[in-house]
Amino acid sequence: MIRPSERAMGIEYAIRDVVIPARELEKKGINVIRLNIGDPGKYDFQPPKHMRDAYCKAIQDGHNYYGTSEGLPETREAIVQREKRKNGVDITSDDVRVTAAVTEALQFIFGALLNPGDNILVPSPSYPPYVGLVKFYGGIANEYLTVEENGWQPDIDDMRKKINERTKAIAVINPNNPTGALYERKTVREILDLAGEYDLPVISDEIYDLMTYEGEHVSPGSLTKDVPVIVMNGMSKVYFATGWRLGYFYYVDPEGKLDEVREAIDKMARIRICPSTPAQFAAVAGLTGPMGYLDEYMGKLKERRDYIYKRLTEIPGISTTKPQGAFYIFPRIEERSKWKNDFEFVMDVLHKAHVLFVHGSGFGYAGDWHFRIVFLPPVETLEAAMNNFEAFMRERLAE
Amino acid sequence: MIRPSERAMGIEYAIRDVVIPARELEKKGINVIRLNIGDPGKYDFQPPKHMRDAYCKAIQDGHNYYGTSEGLPETREAIVQREKRKNGVDITSDDVRVTAAVTEALQFIFGALLNPGDNILVPSPSYPPYVGLVKFYGGIANEYLTVEENGWQPDIDDMRKKINERTKAIAVINPNNPTGALYERKTVREILDLAGEYDLPVISDEIYDLMTYEGEHVSPGSLTKDVPVIVMNGMSKVYFATGWRLGYFYYVDPEGKLDEVREAIDKMARIRICPSTPAQFAAVAGLTGPMGYLDEYMGKLKERRDYIYKRLTEIPGISTTKPQGAFYIFPRIEERSKWKNDFEFVMDVLHKAHVLFVHGSGFGYAGDWHFRIVFLPPVETLEAAMNNFEAFMRERLAE
Repeated sequence: MIRPSERAMGIEYAIRDVVIPARELEKKGINVIRLNIGDPGKYDFQPPKHMRDAYCKAIQDGHNYYGTSEGLPETREAIVQREKRKNGVDITSDDVRVTAAVTEALQFIFGALLNPGDNILVPSPSYPPYVGLVKFYGGIANEYLTVEENGWQPDIDDMRKKINERTKAIAVINPNNPTGALYERKTVREILDLAGEYDLPVISDEIYDLMTYEGEHVSPGSLTKDVPVIVMNGMSKVYFATGWRLGYFYYVDPEGKLDEVREAIDKMARIRICPSTPAQFAAVAGLTGPMGYLDEYMGKLKERRDYIYKRLTEIPGISTTKPQGAFYIFPRIEERSKWKNDFEFVMDVLHKAHVLFVHGSGFGYAGDWHFRIVFLPPVETLEAAMNNFEAFMRERLAE
Repeated sequence: MIRPSERAMGIEYAIRDVVIPARELEKKGINVIRLNIGDPGKYDFQPPKHMRDAYCKAIQDGHNYYGTSEGLPETREAIVQREKRKNGVDITSDDVRVTAAVTEALQFIFGALLNPGDNILVPSPSYPPYVGLVKFYGGIANEYLTVEENGWQPDIDDMRKKINERTKAIAVINPNNPTGALYERKTVREILDLAGEYDLPVISDEIYDLMTYEGEHVSPGSLTKDVPVIVMNGMSKVYFATGWRLGYFYYVDPEGKLDEVREAIDKMARIRICPSTPAQFAAVAGLTGPMGYLDEYMGKLKERRDYIYKRLTEIPGISTTKPQGAFYIFPRIEERSKWKNDFEFVMDVLHKAHVLFVHGSGFGYAGDWHFRIVFLPPVETLEAAMNNFEAFMRERLAE
């Protein structure tokens, strides 16, 4: 038997790991209501027509060659315009890089920042690839607390306590996956101040930036004066094109503190040649085109958010914070005597109620005794899931 | 200044690194004939219409969601059929993984095999990401000689000498980039025998498999009995879709020696979610569709190969081995008194003749005093490039 590397064996990815037991049930003919993956394209959401048309036109017009490693000039220019409009950032297309979705941006940024033993401050709970990729590069995912009682806002004091001499950056996911939290302007300012104090860059994941129900997203990129900020975004959520695998990031770094990191990232980018060329033409159409579709989609999502929140507050044994952004809700398991941990809880729900959630501990230690629900499906699907789940909880609590 | 990781700073990528001085010239208004990047899509080659149409249909039909991490079932099944036809391999779709081109396959395989200090046997000369990615994962690119006098066939004795207790695999690129060599059946058998003797897997890069001028490509996957082979291929060359970034690999591993490595690779695959969904529908069309376009394209390529070979043999100060596959030619600089090394030679050609080659040493130590030419452009372009280059050589040799 040939042994694999420690690096690769250490990876965990809760969101997809729960799929295997669900598939086993489905193989037996059982209909599982899957609320585990944040993929709008699986439901009644599609990338807008002007993006799909631009993608096809690029393919038929012959834009099927290798692009530049940094991304096509026209795509980077469209990103500049979009980000100036949204965040008022002072950047040029030289500051922008196009990637195979935010995942590749994270690979580049973590790969270029981390020597073995270094750490990155990541929120707890957080989207699993943050922890997974930091570990993959021999680093330590240094989890800072976000506080449920405070709408899952980051705990700045805890952040400060966690910084040490091997800390290389502070990562922020806002709106947050898995909690749906939207960070206050004051919080974003405090994170920037802290980063400035310790001379750390801020890595800002803004993939859900225009998906808010109450309040508006505030980017650290729009508030920074001298603290370097790397903003990540892409086509997967706001543009509903998850399967296209196209994202981007840019540097807001007025003092050039990241110049050497940029060079290292460009080396990594060159070795993988380029992101998809025709998909970048679709991105131009999306970034510069009409956004009316988003109002319609956000109307549907708000209805679903309101529905699932109402249902969850009526189910005994759990408590729920209302998400203000993204399409996740992250309830807390209050009744803990029936299960050993949140994974056992989620497996019990799967096998008895045939509804698939993701266990909260898969998102970091602050996710213990929670679970994540994706509320993208239509209300009828959510209703069926909540009916099953409510019956399950009432039965378990009566035992 | 924030310092980048050693891992990322160590990457070199000769093919794109020579572009920067070429761009400088172009900024001054000088027309550079670029023969550095192996991209058919930049010339008169396009992915066939049935692939482009299938890609667009997938986008318009709503296949824009996340696929499974392993690749879509229908794409993996199409790969199985294609590979059975080409190589007669006994595999199922469970053995196949779809990737963002061969580059991502290499990231997965090297990332899952290499602990720091381990090594992979790679050909010298070889395609630079082999050396770059092995180093990126803390490994050592253990270069084995391929012999110019023997049509750039691998030197099996040298391979044997290079194997040590930290060797994790033998990588083979056939048809070869940058030499255009096509390995004999006997050579492939000998590599398999050697791998079997040392219990090593063979990693076989077959991205140019149907692009041969004389002879036929022989895959180690088709000859192996018990030695595990990982075959890599994709849409970039034979299907002329470089910019789509879609590839695949599969395991021919009758004794299951790679089971743990497979698991490690699947963990890496899950964390990046999936390859492009609509592009996978295009791949199905390409893999199962008519191949007539390839005859036409290979006819054009053979004409260009014959033309450039003839011209190069008439130029003094260099010697040239005729490539049997791919679209590269790798001449040797015989007259060495005028330049310090092959990089200086290539820069001199760029600045005086305005033709861009890649220096051979960028492909490993056996590439010293060579240079790589991509012969994809039409004969008129090659003619202009060879006229300039011939004049340059005659002038330099007269000095």
